Amino acid sequence: MKRLTFTLLIALLSVFSTAFAQNALIQRVNPTNWWVGLKNPNLQLLVYGPNAGTLAYSLNYPGVKLVKAHTVENPNYAFLDLVIAPTAKPGTLNIVGKRGNQTLTQPFALKARDASPKGQGVTAADFIYLAMPDRFANGDQSNDKFADMADPNADRANPFYRHGGDLAGAAQRINYLKDLGVTAIWFTPVLENNQPLTNEGGAMRSAYHGYGFTDHYAVDRRFGGNEAYKSFVKQAHAAGMKVVQDAVYNHCGINHWFIKDMPSKDWLHQWPTYTNTSYKYQPITDPHGAESDRKVTLDGWFVPFLPDLNQSNPFVANFLIQHAIWSVENFGVDAWRIDTYMYNDQPFMNRCNQALLTEYPKIHIFGESWVNNVVDQAYYTRNKIDFPFKSNQPGGLDFVVYAAMTDALKQKFSWDDGVNRFYQALAQDAVYQDPTKLVTFLDNHDTDRYLSVIGEDFEKYKIGLTWLLTTRGIPSMYYGTEILMKNFKDPSDAEVRRDFPGGFPGDKDNKFETAGRTDRENEAYQFVRKLATYRRDNPVMHAGKLMQFLPQEGTYVYFRYDNNKTVMVATNTNEKEITLNTARFAERLKGFSSAKNVLTDQALADLNDIKLPAKTALVLELRK
Amino acid sequence: MKRLTFTLLIALLSVFSTAFAQNALIQRVNPTNWWVGLKNPNLQLLVYGPNAGTLAYSLNYPGVKLVKAHTVENPNYAFLDLVIAPTAKPGTLNIVGKRGNQTLTQPFALKARDASPKGQGVTAADFIYLAMPDRFANGDQSNDKFADMADPNADRANPFYRHGGDLAGAAQRINYLKDLGVTAIWFTPVLENNQPLTNEGGAMRSAYHGYGFTDHYAVDRRFGGNEAYKSFVKQAHAAGMKVVQDAVYNHCGINHWFIKDMPSKDWLHQWPTYTNTSYKYQPITDPHGAESDRKVTLDGWFVPFLPDLNQSNPFVANFLIQHAIWSVENFGVDAWRIDTYMYNDQPFMNRCNQALLTEYPKIHIFGESWVNNVVDQAYYTRNKIDFPFKSNQPGGLDFVVYAAMTDALKQKFSWDDGVNRFYQALAQDAVYQDPTKLVTFLDNHDTDRYLSVIGEDFEKYKIGLTWLLTTRGIPSMYYGTEILMKNFKDPSDAEVRRDFPGGFPGDKDNKFETAGRTDRENEAYQFVRKLATYRRDNPVMHAGKLMQFLPQEGTYVYFRYDNNKTVMVATNTNEKEITLNTARFAERLKGFSSAKNVLTDQALADLNDIKLPAKTALVLELRK
Repeated sequence: MKRLTFTLLIALLSVFSTAFAQNALIQRVNPTNWWVGLKNPNLQLLVYGPNAGTLAYSLNYPGVKLVKAHTVENPNYAFLDLVIAPTAKPGTLNIVGKRGNQTLTQPFALKARDASPKGQGVTAADFIYLAMPDRFANGDQSNDKFADMADPNADRANPFYRHGGDLAGAAQRINYLKDLGVTAIWFTPVLENNQPLTNEGGAMRSAYHGYGFTDHYAVDRRFGGNEAYKSFVKQAHAAGMKVVQDAVYNHCGINHWFIKDMPSKDWLHQWPTYTNTSYKYQPITDPHGAESDRKVTLDGWFVPFLPDLNQSNPFVANFLIQHAIWSVENFGVDAWRIDTYMYNDQPFMNRCNQALLTEYPKIHIFGESWVNNVVDQAYYTRNKIDFPFKSNQPGGLDFVVYAAMTDALKQKFSWDDGVNRFYQALAQDAVYQDPTKLVTFLDNHDTDRYLSVIGEDFEKYKIGLTWLLTTRGIPSMYYGTEILMKNFKDPSDAEVRRDFPGGFPGDKDNKFETAGRTDRENEAYQFVRKLATYRRDNPVMHAGKLMQFLPQEGTYVYFRYDNNKTVMVATNTNEKEITLNTARFAERLKGFSSAKNVLTDQALADLNDIKLPAKTALVLELRK
Repeated sequence: MKRLTFTLLIALLSVFSTAFAQNALIQRVNPTNWWVGLKNPNLQLLVYGPNAGTLAYSLNYPGVKLVKAHTVENPNYAFLDLVIAPTAKPGTLNIVGKRGNQTLTQPFALKARDASPKGQGVTAADFIYLAMPDRFANGDQSNDKFADMADPNADRANPFYRHGGDLAGAAQRINYLKDLGVTAIWFTPVLENNQPLTNEGGAMRSAYHGYGFTDHYAVDRRFGGNEAYKSFVKQAHAAGMKVVQDAVYNHCGINHWFIKDMPSKDWLHQWPTYTNTSYKYQPITDPHGAESDRKVTLDGWFVPFLPDLNQSNPFVANFLIQHAIWSVENFGVDAWRIDTYMYNDQPFMNRCNQALLTEYPKIHIFGESWVNNVVDQAYYTRNKIDFPFKSNQPGGLDFVVYAAMTDALKQKFSWDDGVNRFYQALAQDAVYQDPTKLVTFLDNHDTDRYLSVIGEDFEKYKIGLTWLLTTRGIPSMYYGTEILMKNFKDPSDAEVRRDFPGGFPGDKDNKFETAGRTDRENEAYQFVRKLATYRRDNPVMHAGKLMQFLPQEGTYVYFRYDNNKTVMVATNTNEKEITLNTARFAERLKGFSSAKNVLTDQALADLNDIKLPAKTALVLELRK
């Protein structure tokens, strides 16, 4: 009741101020600060507040010029174009807004850039761990819920509610991850999602998964806010671990403050009636495609509560691009994962990627384009196909190899199926400029969990992880895979986003520790650890070339090799032991006579005939 | 017994002549003649006979120079490099070979080029009919079998024996094909296959299918020989029909005269023990592929009785390239289908294609590369992928669309299946320089027959043919499809290569004629005829652009359009009638208000909601 009254009051005030335009206020400036010394001297400030657009702006700061002030449909917005000279010094710049005899002064920090690592990139030398912060570990129970937020509940018994995980909890597990061989952590988005829990035709749509931003410049309070994120990155870096930020350009939360009071109608893609994206990517690359299909794919909304941002509006584009730069500079993140990459306006994506790469040449950018073939996948990364549009994205999530690896483990071996699926997917790498920059995975927060997909078969589990950690690309693993977390998305996505046992107060078992894990879970953990650390410590496993041989009779053999080392990965996908005659691998075996089994550290004296137990992938470091 | 004695005698004579090298003979010169006035002035003659390689060659003919005579391992061969000046006149050139006091004179015809059409090409305006000459029609019973050939039997009761079909029989059916709307005929190879019927582990390997040449310069006598072929082409041309020749470069018959007495060991790809090709194409395009896998694919033999020609031997390469030119020039064929294209040495293929295109700029070349994806398919045609090797092949058989069309008819509609398969295959056309130059098909002599593949469903049959005849590409149809011939390859290929009823003396029914066909067969025939002639007569159907829309709920809609006409093809793959709301096709429907149903000639008054009966593809010519 009290809340309603307050809301009414605000509404009345708002009507009053807009209608009568008596007073102006500045409530927000985005970005919330900036830096001197960036390569791009341009900055566009979004200034927001009642009648903020009716002010005449000026500023007086050495080396900074206000070159243009834009107004838009909504009088509550002004967009100020600044140019920051290389000579500008750090300090507080006062943005002055005048109208009649009203003068507003808004301080804005121009910071010095610090020397801490940022934009370090991730490469094939890394091993990425993907976690959902709400479901990984709770380190601060005081931030589990806030009564003033749209989704004010936290209840671990309810899969759709917040569970209380946060950045402080994750920070406490950095050593766990480091021990596992992880070198980079990727959280699903950490920005504020002040969105309500909704029920769409019986399907609960939670906001805990993070893809509906409501304020680009605030990390969600329930994760600990901006300071907790900054602190997490600092601790990760101190432990030699990198951080990947999950970015979303295509849409934002319907509760985003700028959606509630939109700068202009064309801030979003608008339709006469609600129009969902088709989720179909073919119209984008199809030379025979229809413009109307392209429009639905690109401009249709992802879901009703995630409005589709119009990136061809230059103010929207600048807002998003500057936010990317701000995030890397402010938090020090190292790589940039981009959600729903293919639904974005691609020329905009190129601009955005280029802006990041200009400031942070080593940063890695890998978007999510959930496609079923390499042609469409290549379109969204630097490729070797003469498409009318040339993407500059350095990387991408490898959905083709994801599907191929899991099919390879599910299907019976045949002419094109079983392990041939995996082999054939890699055999099409000629379409990419550099396939080693693609991020590989066996599952993620949007898919059935890997262990369930392969029928909870522990031998297959090891094969798939061996492939992930020994083939080309940047491997990433979904949290909990190392302790055998499982489940299908049915009945809801929440099933594959369960809490990491031991991450939450009161958990019966603590699977972050050896003692809390079953023998089988420890075996899994040690298996991942062994391979991940071997990969990490042996350049041949990430910088070495890949050579793969035709699968035969359910076996699949490939090599990683450089001038110093050669490692043979020999998979037997059959249900029975096979003796592998290695004569046809002479190209790579020449000069070697024995091997060390990387997983068992045992010696293998004879390379001519190698016994491959049923459903096994051997990793053999060859010896002269 | 008599035969054995004769063979022994020949063997003894051969030993005598080789060992003692007393006399030289010229038995063969290949090419068997040449022409003045070709763009390429170079000609390499293969001269064969006992000790032909021991002669000193010369010639004396105005405008023709013998620039080099090559000898090889086998003394029975000489290779003579001639240069023919543009000024050279037609006539008979005497090749003179001397050794000691022995002088041999071999006349060789240098002909004038005639003005008859040749190398006219096939384009999307054409409709190709693929027939096996032995199984299509028998016009001359005197050539059904020859006792002196390796496969001396003809017996229509035996699927593996010759059945007696020939070029004279096919020539009698040119008007039938013309009536059907066919504009080009492609025969499986017509060259001599003097190969025995063999039994390989229970699998009968017949030679009637034609891919094992035993003499490149002789059309098989059982088809009527060179004169019958020349005559067929002439009659086809007179009827406005083009002829496609089926070429084989990768291998020849093990009974080929030059295999029985090989010029050199490296005339063929040799292996320490018999090595079959793996039939796997991935190692060729795979950037991670192994050289040994590539070698098996390319240099392994197709089957034991089809030795693999070594195209990196320059004499082999010249022999094959000159044979291609000779065939077009001599017989006047218009297009060139190339067997097992992907197993050939690709730089050789480029040379060969270029040689043909230099002499016949309009000729079309389309090879068989049986692959399962567009990346590998693109590799073998002019493409837009920056592969290390760039193919210059103008066309290719579209195996990707073949599999997609048949899957589209077999599978239930789902996210990626059913008609989405067809849609998605075409949506990847960005990889080709010109996808309209690919030859599309629903089946061929190596696959299950189309009608059986789709479960003998007559409604589906019409849908697939409608797609074939209205989508992009050069449509081709396997003989008998128009009269509902069916069958699976199991138990043998012969099942899908049955005789065309009415093509052979004594046939009960003559399905070349209306009266001999059942009502259903006549309906099928008329269906193909209606579409093929509509395609033929309406440039929009072959030169018009294609625009396809996302399949929805089992429907799939596309348009062919140019400045003059727009044709809408609307398919309903569902088992029940659907009313298609056409609002989303406005891009193409704008300005049109009614239509003519091309198949029924009925008018359609309303384009807003179109009733699509169950399992139907409507072809609508739009009206203003």
